Amino acid sequence: MIIVAKNEAAAQVIVQKLDQHDPIHPVFIHQNRVALAGIKNISEADQQVIADQVEEIIENHHSAIKSSRAFHPEDTIIKTKHSVIGGKNFVLMAGPDSIESPEHVLEMGQDVKAAGATILRGGAFKPRTSPYSYQGNGEEGLKAHRAAADALEMDMVTEILDTRDVDLVDQYTDIFQVGTRNMQNFALLKALGQKRKPVLLKRGMSATIDDLLNAAEYIAAGGNDQIMLMERGIRTFDSKYTRNTFDVGAIPVLQKLTHYPIIADTSHAAGHSEFVTPLAQAAVAAGAQGLMTEIHNDPSHAFVDGAQALTPAQYQVLATTVRKIHEVIA
Amino acid sequence: MIIVAKNEAAAQVIVQKLDQHDPIHPVFIHQNRVALAGIKNISEADQQVIADQVEEIIENHHSAIKSSRAFHPEDTIIKTKHSVIGGKNFVLMAGPDSIESPEHVLEMGQDVKAAGATILRGGAFKPRTSPYSYQGNGEEGLKAHRAAADALEMDMVTEILDTRDVDLVDQYTDIFQVGTRNMQNFALLKALGQKRKPVLLKRGMSATIDDLLNAAEYIAAGGNDQIMLMERGIRTFDSKYTRNTFDVGAIPVLQKLTHYPIIADTSHAAGHSEFVTPLAQAAVAAGAQGLMTEIHNDPSHAFVDGAQALTPAQYQVLATTVRKIHEVIA
Amino acid sequence: MIIVAKNEAAAQVIVQKLDQHDPIHPVFIHQNRVALAGIKNISEADQQVIADQVEEIIENHHSAIKSSRAFHPEDTIIKTKHSVIGGKNFVLMAGPDSIESPEHVLEMGQDVKAAGATILRGGAFKPRTSPYSYQGNGEEGLKAHRAAADALEMDMVTEILDTRDVDLVDQYTDIFQVGTRNMQNFALLKALGQKRKPVLLKRGMSATIDDLLNAAEYIAAGGNDQIMLMERGIRTFDSKYTRNTFDVGAIPVLQKLTHYPIIADTSHAAGHSEFVTPLAQAAVAAGAQGLMTEIHNDPSHAFVDGAQALTPAQYQVLATTVRKIHEVIA
Amino acid sequence: MIIVAKNEAAAQVIVQKLDQHDPIHPVFIHQNRVALAGIKNISEADQQVIADQVEEIIENHHSAIKSSRAFHPEDTIIKTKHSVIGGKNFVLMAGPDSIESPEHVLEMGQDVKAAGATILRGGAFKPRTSPYSYQGNGEEGLKAHRAAADALEMDMVTEILDTRDVDLVDQYTDIFQVGTRNMQNFALLKALGQKRKPVLLKRGMSATIDDLLNAAEYIAAGGNDQIMLMERGIRTFDSKYTRNTFDVGAIPVLQKLTHYPIIADTSHAAGHSEFVTPLAQAAVAAGAQGLMTEIHNDPSHAFVDGAQALTPAQYQVLATTVRKIHEVIA
Repeated sequence: MIIVAKNEAAAQVIVQKLDQHDPIHPVFIHQNRVALAGIKNISEADQQVIADQVEEIIENHHSAIKSSRAFHPEDTIIKTKHSVIGGKNFVLMAGPDSIESPEHVLEMGQDVKAAGATILRGGAFKPRTSPYSYQGNGEEGLKAHRAAADALEMDMVTEILDTRDVDLVDQYTDIFQVGTRNMQNFALLKALGQKRKPVLLKRGMSATIDDLLNAAEYIAAGGNDQIMLMERGIRTFDSKYTRNTFDVGAIPVLQKLTHYPIIADTSHAAGHSEFVTPLAQAAVAAGAQGLMTEIHNDPSHAFVDGAQALTPAQYQVLATTVRKIHEVIA
Repeated sequence: MIIVAKNEAAAQVIVQKLDQHDPIHPVFIHQNRVALAGIKNISEADQQVIADQVEEIIENHHSAIKSSRAFHPEDTIIKTKHSVIGGKNFVLMAGPDSIESPEHVLEMGQDVKAAGATILRGGAFKPRTSPYSYQGNGEEGLKAHRAAADALEMDMVTEILDTRDVDLVDQYTDIFQVGTRNMQNFALLKALGQKRKPVLLKRGMSATIDDLLNAAEYIAAGGNDQIMLMERGIRTFDSKYTRNTFDVGAIPVLQKLTHYPIIADTSHAAGHSEFVTPLAQAAVAAGAQGLMTEIHNDPSHAFVDGAQALTPAQYQVLATTVRKIHEVIA
Repeated sequence: MIIVAKNEAAAQVIVQKLDQHDPIHPVFIHQNRVALAGIKNISEADQQVIADQVEEIIENHHSAIKSSRAFHPEDTIIKTKHSVIGGKNFVLMAGPDSIESPEHVLEMGQDVKAAGATILRGGAFKPRTSPYSYQGNGEEGLKAHRAAADALEMDMVTEILDTRDVDLVDQYTDIFQVGTRNMQNFALLKALGQKRKPVLLKRGMSATIDDLLNAAEYIAAGGNDQIMLMERGIRTFDSKYTRNTFDVGAIPVLQKLTHYPIIADTSHAAGHSEFVTPLAQAAVAAGAQGLMTEIHNDPSHAFVDGAQALTPAQYQVLATTVRKIHEVIA
Repeated sequence: MIIVAKNEAAAQVIVQKLDQHDPIHPVFIHQNRVALAGIKNISEADQQVIADQVEEIIENHHSAIKSSRAFHPEDTIIKTKHSVIGGKNFVLMAGPDSIESPEHVLEMGQDVKAAGATILRGGAFKPRTSPYSYQGNGEEGLKAHRAAADALEMDMVTEILDTRDVDLVDQYTDIFQVGTRNMQNFALLKALGQKRKPVLLKRGMSATIDDLLNAAEYIAAGGNDQIMLMERGIRTFDSKYTRNTFDVGAIPVLQKLTHYPIIADTSHAAGHSEFVTPLAQAAVAAGAQGLMTEIHNDPSHAFVDGAQALTPAQYQVLATTVRKIHEVIA
């Protein structure tokens, strides 16, 4: 239930009168709006107590209440040291799939920065389908990644796989990334909800739009409102020519439902470099506020997922084209 | 098996020597290329007979051999009276879901022509999930549709549901449309393969890319090479906010595999008018060579699928935006 | 809307008073129940006219009204010359995928009859993904199939692909089969609705339960109530080890919603002979009232789909086991 | 690569000569079989060194090498204090969805034990889609669950959500359960691989068979070979009448590929109590070696998932029927 108060002061009054410190049913406030999480209606006594402050009651809203436009109508804008994400802004995130060496991540960073990217991606902890695939180089990778980002004056985003690593990763990164396989790792989401640092949450392979919003809500419920949602392709009956089915429709749907920035990862959706750019063009044309792209200077020797990596030159073309498309639809 | 001959004359020689008039394994010729459908290799005797004419043998090609780029490398361009479809061209098809009256289809046609559409869509035979839903007005609708198209100097495209109606519909339409539920109605595809008029083939709800190409091949095998393929959304696990999942990746994938024009129907993918335009933008940004869109001046009273219909004003905006996007990626 | 009348005579009175001969909103009667197809509520005037005859009004029913339990609570029992299908009965249908020769279908028929099958399956018109695959031997196959069924005193079931073939196939078969790719070939369903001969309707690859019931309703709406529904596997994200995902849950779900017999085809679901029998066991344990199975004495040389064919000896084992399971759950 | 040695002693010799202590490419031994994980072939020098010990080299095996039948042909049998799981044995696991109180879990345990269950299920940490749904009562629940299991001489199985809770849960439970949303929480799988206690691994909602086997391999790679795999329904295009699509075919497929016991959870697949029993019958008929079922004495007041809970009386019927089916197919 969302109560639209007459003004911000009235909202404060309502919160004071209603808050019951119940972990399952917390009360949130945003400007003149008060959200009663998990509550469908309040007692008549409570209604009377707050009646003078209320302008409107919204009962029909998404269960991910903090994440909903009904509670937070305007776009969330996330400001990192080198980037402004959300709203009318457009952001490019790119880099290698995994951190291979300090030199390599630096070189890749130079290339993507030259193309206009402000956020340097790279994985130190890699979620691999098989235990016998390369698992990432851990803290060593985090250090190299941080050093490259600092040297290039870029933001760093990297994936976290384990609640036990939250503090470690926190020492290095600017943005936490939660991968598709952990979208409903609720322990991890809760842990990140305790941080005050942006989280990039990737949609699960078979997560519905509602699942994604509810997963984001686990982070938001803990008090961390700096959330970005990422469409990266879903599992469907056809995966012969692309690794996943890029659900481009999720972009406008999410933008209607939630205020968080919506980013697209077309590298994992495509799975083959030749389709990464057309999908990126589509994502931006549909309204994506940012793109994440994997690049590699020597894709056939990449440690992980070389088939879907663009070369720096290909990425330069992508970046130029998508900026033009973003201008058309702005 | 595809035999690339040294030149067109050599291809003719090869065909004469190899053709065996076998309905299951026909032989096709395109410029200097000879396709042996359903044949993996030929006898050593045959190889020797044609050896002098051969430049290259392609064994690894799509089973939809006439539809493949390996057989027909350059884009197919389809020319109707008022439109040029395929290649670098971009075409707009629009109109009401169903033909409601002569006046209505004419009015809708005026609106979409004003926005730049050259092909007027409309359904006289409607494939409805329930027998108790409006089934279309049949030949009466065809007549009204034809009259409107003629008056406006537009091409007419309409759906055909029954092999018994092929000749009837042929009397009126410029382009046959095969709907998603009939994509593997092989009897219908074979019947249309006997015509020499363009066919717009919509992808089935759970048709793989390979299924779609093989369905097109049923038409091509009969000798009708004027085929357009249409992505219109597929069935996935999530259909709460959009009617189908628009598989935007199918567009570049199909363009790699086949030479036919690829058209997008984002009305049926979206299912809700508010998402039709962002999906259309995405489709064009991904390389679609045309768009089909449903419009209605009074969506809430449309006979069929009003929820997904754009108003004429909304369509005008869509048309303007997608043309700009098409220019960016051209 | 379904009106439960006080008795059968009262139902007749209601029908006389309400029937308006509207093809989109026909009125059906079953014992003391009257179905108003596609109608949500009737005028107050009409309500008053029939008030004395009415025991109960059911507004919340499936749109496939004739197919619903709300209209027809008891199981439909279909009696053919050699089989009783539906209710507590259990029926075995088996035979080769395609009719290869008069001798072959007769031999296969002998084998499946020995195992307890009473319905001989076989395809003369084959819906193949590629036009360059064997398409069946047409009327010649129908004749051989009919002759074998007659010689063995079995019923014949065969697939029909084209509305133009309805009368031809009708001359030979006891049961029409509509395949998965034609489940929403509404022209074909309407044509079969005009016959008075059982129809076996296979679920489409991505047809929902509701789609299947509505497709059946196309047949029922024409007056043909002898319908069997068949679960044969659906398309999902995983088709590496089985050709389709056998949706065993569809069996009890359908039995709750509809009165038609529910049959399972585990050959097409499995796609590999080793999984046909465990799936058949599962289908019967879940309540399937019949099984269709493909057999071949020499699977590796079958004209079509040899990989999923059981040998006669394997089929004998299957038949014995499933009958025991049927007894356990009876 | 799997090397089948001439005998167990020969296998030991091979291991000594080849083991290179590489965490990504470990060497495993089972009787006379040696598995080289992640290795496709070995050097000619190595081949010569071991040539005398080798009977056969298997190169074509599943990437989940320890989990594969090629490495471990015979069924894994897991023995807990009160249960024998795997092979020809059949085991019943049941209990409430969540631990509601010490009295309640004890009462539910008595009921399921009376029906033949030897393993008492119950959740203390609940993975809920929304943060505002009941999240379980944590250690308090574990204590009550343990006490009930001890009092009833049953085994305890409970879900673990967080790597930080592994030691805590380990103090109480007999079997760790990894839920569908954590199937690819690789940090958790690795942590459980360090334990020597059975793990029940549920298939992810859109996990392929290969994904599931590779997830199990994460546990096995750590040295914990006591693994059970659970089919619990997958996400498909149709979820109107059942919560998930129970993939009954996964049971025989998994039994072909792996030696681990295969258990079915038909409560989460069905989502509605009326379909839990037919699906359980199907699962057992397809060869499932055990069933997990949720029960509640007052489903409409269950803390979690009451809609899918059987009453104790319904569970008694289920247990009796499935045992009869298990006998038929034994």
